[in-house]
Amino acid sequence: MAIQDGDFVRVDFTGSIKETDEIFDTTSEDIAEEAGILVENKKYGPIPIIVGGNHLLPAIEEAIIGSEAGESVHVSVTPENGFGQRNPNLIQLIPMKEFKKQGMTPVRGMKISTENGNGKIISVNGGRVKVDFNHDLAGKNLEYDVTVVELIEDDEEKIKSMIELHYSYPNMDYDNIEIKFDGSTVSIKLDEITRFDQQSYMDVTFARFRISKDIWDNMDYEKVQFVDEFEKIVEEAPDEEVEAEVETEVEADAEE
Amino acid sequence: MAIQDGDFVRVDFTGSIKETDEIFDTTSEDIAEEAGILVENKKYGPIPIIVGGNHLLPAIEEAIIGSEAGESVHVSVTPENGFGQRNPNLIQLIPMKEFKKQGMTPVRGMKISTENGNGKIISVNGGRVKVDFNHDLAGKNLEYDVTVVELIEDDEEKIKSMIELHYSYPNMDYDNIEIKFDGSTVSIKLDEITRFDQQSYMDVTFARFRISKDIWDNMDYEKVQFVDEFEKIVEEAPDEEVEAEVETEVEADAEE
Repeated sequence: MAIQDGDFVRVDFTGSIKETDEIFDTTSEDIAEEAGILVENKKYGPIPIIVGGNHLLPAIEEAIIGSEAGESVHVSVTPENGFGQRNPNLIQLIPMKEFKKQGMTPVRGMKISTENGNGKIISVNGGRVKVDFNHDLAGKNLEYDVTVVELIEDDEEKIKSMIELHYSYPNMDYDNIEIKFDGSTVSIKLDEITRFDQQSYMDVTFARFRISKDIWDNMDYEKVQFVDEFEKIVEEAPDEEVEAEVETEVEADAEE
Repeated sequence: MAIQDGDFVRVDFTGSIKETDEIFDTTSEDIAEEAGILVENKKYGPIPIIVGGNHLLPAIEEAIIGSEAGESVHVSVTPENGFGQRNPNLIQLIPMKEFKKQGMTPVRGMKISTENGNGKIISVNGGRVKVDFNHDLAGKNLEYDVTVVELIEDDEEKIKSMIELHYSYPNMDYDNIEIKFDGSTVSIKLDEITRFDQQSYMDVTFARFRISKDIWDNMDYEKVQFVDEFEKIVEEAPDEEVEAEVETEVEADAEE
């Protein structure tokens, strides 16, 4: 069945820069290792997206429409459809003393993070440091190989895929996610391990909002509930008590 | 109706040290101000507790059993029933260099917080600092005046009182808390403002656990659910569009 707009799918992809063939992103651990861009502790493997859901570059999501699951698609992405043209105004001179204030020694190639966003030092010249705040991929023509490896059709699996995309809590067991449907309401009980999340409640709220929005916009539900249930702990009688009872019975027998 | 064990009540209290008449804790803003112990931003006024729920010293909770709402009760609390006897082993000598490491200058009377708990510096003598880790009220005979100002009888109000006790989120509107009962299950939707809590999700979980436990132990419910609901935002047609429609109609009329 050909992939359509709004489909929930899992995709593998690898992106490279046209001019240099340099691979900058991939879902494959092997390719990442070969290209020397392996990130430790990153979870590799196909990622769940909604076609047209703005989870990848729109150009990529459009390109897979009409393909079949398992089929590889090649997509060329111009800067306009990618990360924009380079903007010369985003190259700025920062006085050396600003770095010294922070106890930093600026070096060419160093990445820095400021109120104006993330930048890369492109030169250090006496008291002046030149920083490029353009996106690393601005101005580049990109080439992507994309494969839809799975079309997700079951409603429960669609919702789990959006949980995986927006709230991939470490060690969460997806089999321990309980999803109930009632008319236009979806009710989700996440694996209890997620209750011990050290992130702020607010950040979890934002992740839940993104999950909910993807559900409203792409499925026939209008309300999404996240439920944490606390159930009375019924204490079991400890073993000793059971033993004590047995002894009493034996004594009673002896007395008879 | 006389107060019983397990009742949900709101109490006012003031506690003082028998030997010195010094007031150390009170729910009354006026008394706190008079005694010079007013804490800024602290919410004064009666606090909700469950009688026998271990929310106040057990001796206080026992003392109000049998009293009537509105009646004042006087309770004398011995160290054994209060904050324990003073333990001489909890007075420790800490080398001055430990303070210097932290960039601290120890001064008599200063309160410090360490891995061993909270302590108070009782003397500074050359290279040695004597710190008392006993509770401030250890070894003291205490006198409490306690008034049950309200007996809470409605189930919804009982639950709200435990939310107030364990999770008093600033600016939460208690009228915006939705509580539903279904058999042995209570389902709670807090005011949406609480979704933006900057505390960790785990800390909120602990507060919810305490609320749930007080409900199981003292009411006829066995499951407590906390529900966050996200509902599809239906965008209203902007005014311009409505105007445009009206214009079209007028034109159509003119043509007839």
